[in-house]
Amino acid sequence: MSEPTTLQGVFSPVLTPFSADLTPHVPRYIDHCRNLLSQGVGLAIFGTNSEAASLGLAEKRQLLDALLEAGVPPQRMMPGTGACAVPESVEMTRHAVASGCAGVLMLPPFYYKGVGDEGLFRYFSQIVEGVGDDRLRMYLYHIPPVTQVGLSHALIERLLKAYPGLIAGVKDSGGDWNHTESLIRNYQPEGFQVFAGTETVLLDTLRAGGAGCITATANVNATGIMRLYETWRAPGAAELQARINQTRAVFQAFPLIPAMKAAIAWQTATPEWRGVRPPLVELTDEQANQLRMNLAKLDTPAA
Amino acid sequence: MSEPTTLQGVFSPVLTPFSADLTPHVPRYIDHCRNLLSQGVGLAIFGTNSEAASLGLAEKRQLLDALLEAGVPPQRMMPGTGACAVPESVEMTRHAVASGCAGVLMLPPFYYKGVGDEGLFRYFSQIVEGVGDDRLRMYLYHIPPVTQVGLSHALIERLLKAYPGLIAGVKDSGGDWNHTESLIRNYQPEGFQVFAGTETVLLDTLRAGGAGCITATANVNATGIMRLYETWRAPGAAELQARINQTRAVFQAFPLIPAMKAAIAWQTATPEWRGVRPPLVELTDEQANQLRMNLAKLDTPAA
Repeated sequence: MSEPTTLQGVFSPVLTPFSADLTPHVPRYIDHCRNLLSQGVGLAIFGTNSEAASLGLAEKRQLLDALLEAGVPPQRMMPGTGACAVPESVEMTRHAVASGCAGVLMLPPFYYKGVGDEGLFRYFSQIVEGVGDDRLRMYLYHIPPVTQVGLSHALIERLLKAYPGLIAGVKDSGGDWNHTESLIRNYQPEGFQVFAGTETVLLDTLRAGGAGCITATANVNATGIMRLYETWRAPGAAELQARINQTRAVFQAFPLIPAMKAAIAWQTATPEWRGVRPPLVELTDEQANQLRMNLAKLDTPAA
Repeated sequence: MSEPTTLQGVFSPVLTPFSADLTPHVPRYIDHCRNLLSQGVGLAIFGTNSEAASLGLAEKRQLLDALLEAGVPPQRMMPGTGACAVPESVEMTRHAVASGCAGVLMLPPFYYKGVGDEGLFRYFSQIVEGVGDDRLRMYLYHIPPVTQVGLSHALIERLLKAYPGLIAGVKDSGGDWNHTESLIRNYQPEGFQVFAGTETVLLDTLRAGGAGCITATANVNATGIMRLYETWRAPGAAELQARINQTRAVFQAFPLIPAMKAAIAWQTATPEWRGVRPPLVELTDEQANQLRMNLAKLDTPAA
C-alpha cells in the first residue's frame, strides 16, 4: 500500500443516490464518483451533503467497499468517519485507513452541547489512539452551524502538538472567512492543510495559501469550480469566482441537498436521483422547475 | 410474551457506569438498575443522561441483553433507541421490542438543522413501519435544547392519527412548563402519556393529569422524588416538591452527568463510577467535594 499523500485541491462531499426504497443505489454512486474524479474533484464521501448522518455504519462500510471493488482510488478519498460515539468513529476510521483512504474527515461529537476543549481533545485523542495506525491522516471538521460544537484554535494546537503528522488539516464550514484566513495563516505553514467549506471563498483561500475547498456544489458544478482552481493565478480568476458564486446562490435558494439531487436527476435523466432520506425532503416538481429555470438564466456548466 | 403495559410514574435515564478503560461496567450497571427498580423508578436506559450518544449500537444491544439475562424486567424499561439514521433506529427499536421492552424513547434525527414536519413525520413513520411490530410503544422525545430539533403539536397529531396506539406518549425536556401543560391538556385524555423531562415540575404534571416524569436526578434522588410521586395528593406535597427542587439545583450547579456520577461514586465507595466518556469530563476532586458539601447542607436523601 502506498504512503498517504497530502490532499489538496477541490473535494466534493459526494451525494448519495438512493433507489425508490431509499437504499443506496450503488451503480449510480460509482458512476457519480467516477464522474467527479474525471473532472479532477476528490471524493469526500460521507460528508454532511452526502446525508452521511442518515446512513448506518454498516451501510457506509458497504458503500466504501463497493467503491474500492469498482476500482475507485482510495488515494483520492477523504471519507467522513465521525460519529457521536468513540467506538463507532474508531471502527469507521480504521476501516477507511485500512482501505488506503488518503485521509478522513472527522466531525466532533455533536449530540451534547456546551462541551469544552478538554472533552473534545479526549474525544479526538481516543479516536487517534483507538485507530492506532500511523497512516491515519485526520482532517478536523469545523461546522458549528450544524454541529453547534466548534473547534477552537487552542484545541487544534493541542491536537497538532500531540499527534504531529496525523492531524493533517481542517475543513472550515463555519461560514466566516476571517476564521478560515486565520487558520491558514496560523497552521498552513506547518503543513496543516486548510480547506474552505465552500467554493465561494476558493480564490481567497488559494491566494492566502490554503489547500483548496471541500464543497457540496462541486457535485453539480465541478467544471466551473475546477476551471477556477486550475487558473486562479491567471487574469480573469475574479470573474470565474463571481460566476461560480452565482451558480451556488441559485442552488442555495432551495434546500441544498435536494436541489443538487434534482439537478443530477434531470442531467442524467434519472428521476430516482431526487430521493433523499428523512428528515430531508426532496424538491417539489415546482421547485425543481424553478431551479432549472434559474440556472438556465446563468452562463453555468451546472445548468 | 405479555402485552405491553401503559407506562407511568417516575423513570430515570439510567447512568452508564464505565470501567477505567471506559468500557461499560456491566455488573455495576445491573446493580444500579436493580437499585432504581427497588425504589419504584422505571428504567429509561440509553437516555441523554445515560451518555447513550457516546455508546455504539453494538454496545447498547449488549447492555440491554445483559440486563435481560440478569433478570431485570423489560416491562419496566423504556430504552432510548433513536439515532440519526433510520436503519440504526429501526435496528435498536426492533431489538428492544423483541426483548419485551414496554416502550422506547425516540429522539428525532439530530444532525440536520432547520428540518420541517414533513421530513420528521417521514422519519418516525419509517421507523414505525421498519419495526413492523404491533407491540411497539413509541414515546417521542422532545428535547430541543440538545437536539435543536423540536416536535410540534402538528407533528404529534399527524403521528397519532397515522399510528394510533403505537405512538404512546412523549417526554418533554423542552424546559417550558407551558408547553408540557399544553401537551397534557391536548393529548393525555386520548391516552397519550405525557412525561415531564424534569422532576421540578412533577407535582404540576400530576395535578394536570400527566403520566409522570423521566428525570436524570432520579439516579441520585429516587427516594425524594418517589416520596412526592406516592403522596402528591396529600398535604405537604408542595414542600416535598420544593425539597427535591433544591437537591436538583445543587446538582445542576455542576455539569449534571459528571455530578451525578460523582455522587454515586462516593455513595458506593467506587471511584470508577466517576468516569464519563468524552466529550464529557468528570468532575475535579474540588468540584466533587464542593458538591458533597452543598448536598450535606440540605435535608436530602441524595446527600
